[in-house]
Amino acid sequence: MSQESEYSEGDLRNTGMSLKHDREWDYELERIVEAVEEKDAKKIGLQFPEGLKRRGPKVADDLRELVPEDVTIMLSGQPCYGACDLDTYLMKRTDVFVHFGHSPMKDTDKVIYVPLFSNVEVTPIIEEALETLEPAEETPEVGLVTTAQHMNRFEEMRDFLEDRGYDVKTRRGDDRLTHEGQVLGCNYASADVPADQVLYVGGGKFHPLGLAMEHPDKHVVIADPVNNVVTVADTEKFMKQRYGAVHRAMDAEKWGVIFCTKIGQGRWEKAQEILEDNDDAYLITMDEVTPDRLRNFDMDAFVNTGCPRITTDDGPRFHKPMLTPGEYEIAVGNEPLENLEFDTFHGTW
Amino acid sequence: MSQESEYSEGDLRNTGMSLKHDREWDYELERIVEAVEEKDAKKIGLQFPEGLKRRGPKVADDLRELVPEDVTIMLSGQPCYGACDLDTYLMKRTDVFVHFGHSPMKDTDKVIYVPLFSNVEVTPIIEEALETLEPAEETPEVGLVTTAQHMNRFEEMRDFLEDRGYDVKTRRGDDRLTHEGQVLGCNYASADVPADQVLYVGGGKFHPLGLAMEHPDKHVVIADPVNNVVTVADTEKFMKQRYGAVHRAMDAEKWGVIFCTKIGQGRWEKAQEILEDNDDAYLITMDEVTPDRLRNFDMDAFVNTGCPRITTDDGPRFHKPMLTPGEYEIAVGNEPLENLEFDTFHGTW
Repeated sequence: MSQESEYSEGDLRNTGMSLKHDREWDYELERIVEAVEEKDAKKIGLQFPEGLKRRGPKVADDLRELVPEDVTIMLSGQPCYGACDLDTYLMKRTDVFVHFGHSPMKDTDKVIYVPLFSNVEVTPIIEEALETLEPAEETPEVGLVTTAQHMNRFEEMRDFLEDRGYDVKTRRGDDRLTHEGQVLGCNYASADVPADQVLYVGGGKFHPLGLAMEHPDKHVVIADPVNNVVTVADTEKFMKQRYGAVHRAMDAEKWGVIFCTKIGQGRWEKAQEILEDNDDAYLITMDEVTPDRLRNFDMDAFVNTGCPRITTDDGPRFHKPMLTPGEYEIAVGNEPLENLEFDTFHGTW
Repeated sequence: MSQESEYSEGDLRNTGMSLKHDREWDYELERIVEAVEEKDAKKIGLQFPEGLKRRGPKVADDLRELVPEDVTIMLSGQPCYGACDLDTYLMKRTDVFVHFGHSPMKDTDKVIYVPLFSNVEVTPIIEEALETLEPAEETPEVGLVTTAQHMNRFEEMRDFLEDRGYDVKTRRGDDRLTHEGQVLGCNYASADVPADQVLYVGGGKFHPLGLAMEHPDKHVVIADPVNNVVTVADTEKFMKQRYGAVHRAMDAEKWGVIFCTKIGQGRWEKAQEILEDNDDAYLITMDEVTPDRLRNFDMDAFVNTGCPRITTDDGPRFHKPMLTPGEYEIAVGNEPLENLEFDTFHGTW
């Protein structure tokens, strides 16, 4: 098994979102063509997240019609799971580098970000979600969050809820987030609002599960307009797994400390801190953090300073306990068990 | 399935070679310590091939005893399949970068290469192989090749054969090879000798299979001192697979052209050549070439300009036909079927 080979719960690749709606998405080719002309580019690099990779050749076809014949178009074949996950090899070796499907994590003129918005209607599923939210008459406050893909309809969502008497609480989160109300798999600061319930509008369970783990005190209602279903986020199974992993790691002697080399997933200070404090810790650097890559290392447990979602969502697939830095502190006895919380990322690159 | 998750036939990880003998191998720590002192290094990067990764922490332990306390030791967690496959991320970010287990592919002061020699006896299995070789009285000429791991006993092998009346033919191969008689998974130029039979001494089937495919006219005898077995290389199954893949690709319209970004596996000109000649070809760049990474691309067939062994050994695991550049030329009708031959690499980085 490997990170690429099996779908984790809530995996965006299962939603079919891209397949249903991509024909009407706007790839902003004119922005790319302008950049090619401006820079007299000879190489264009295109990066798509997993669910949109199959669109790459078609976008390349369309671009070929618009740029000079001597321009080479390169498609990134690297896995891509977010704006944190730029193909830096391609970025450094192309004159114009385009990252599709995610909003910018940091302003840079090295990357053209093309956020792709879903054209799926959101109000019908929010209408349905009203039955699962606390009634506005009793609990008017409701947080509202969504993903980059549905950001184009954020005001529509807000208006719909306000028309039904809700007091919609939103915020922009922190520097890692581009938009008001936006969440990432590793950052739910936009849900840090004065409301006991939060409505998440978006496809899949990947984001709302993180949201519920980060805010265990809130009632998280999921309105999924892609799969046309309303559910309530349930973190019980995941939390049990986390406690289980921490307990199993308590006996560990040799620790592998993973430093992820992906541009937006590295926490060097955190890794150094653990190493300095533990003579039985070994620093392991890698981009894709997969069970196969770690199986060759003879460790008792791992602490992953990279993407927290690999730890929480793929955790059970590793041959040894895989913990977040916070969970590591509990396992080695530096923190009490009740301090267990969801690991999030707040800086930019 | 992924490149890392399943063992291909002849995979070195199956030989147990590293497990049996690594305790007595020489990691040349003094060379590393000297380099640390000379450069006043603060970061040391260590890279091990898959079969030796489990030794990494122990080598790190030993090094820690010898270098100043403020030096950080980093273990590469990237897959590593040869001297062609340096962890360039780690190389660029450490003051001293050490690559274990392979002989240098190119002279560079950026890398300390520590070739690890097996201490396994080779003459007993060569003795046994005499029964499978043509008798010296009838066919005295025999080519002799081995891998970097057994290079320390190459003269012993030669002497043994010469003492039995053989006329041992050896050569250094080309620039990609460090030693006389050495083969790589992608280069068998050292077997290009005036002899109809070749004795390969080494563990596993990975190398002799490539050797037999590259030299189909030669009788290739495998003397495996690690698994203590003598066999004759049989390429029939592999050649059938290759012909099958070429035939299946003949109907392909959309081609994915893979450019591998690993330092020693890129053939840019080859990739460009294919792209310029075929309007339905798309350039895809990646480091690890795995079935999972390609499944997301909607192509009819792929041509891999990177490591030929991924194409030949892992080929059947990809969802669409995966060809070498030579096989591609046959599939699109530029070359006749009888020109099918094994793909090899001859340049250095």
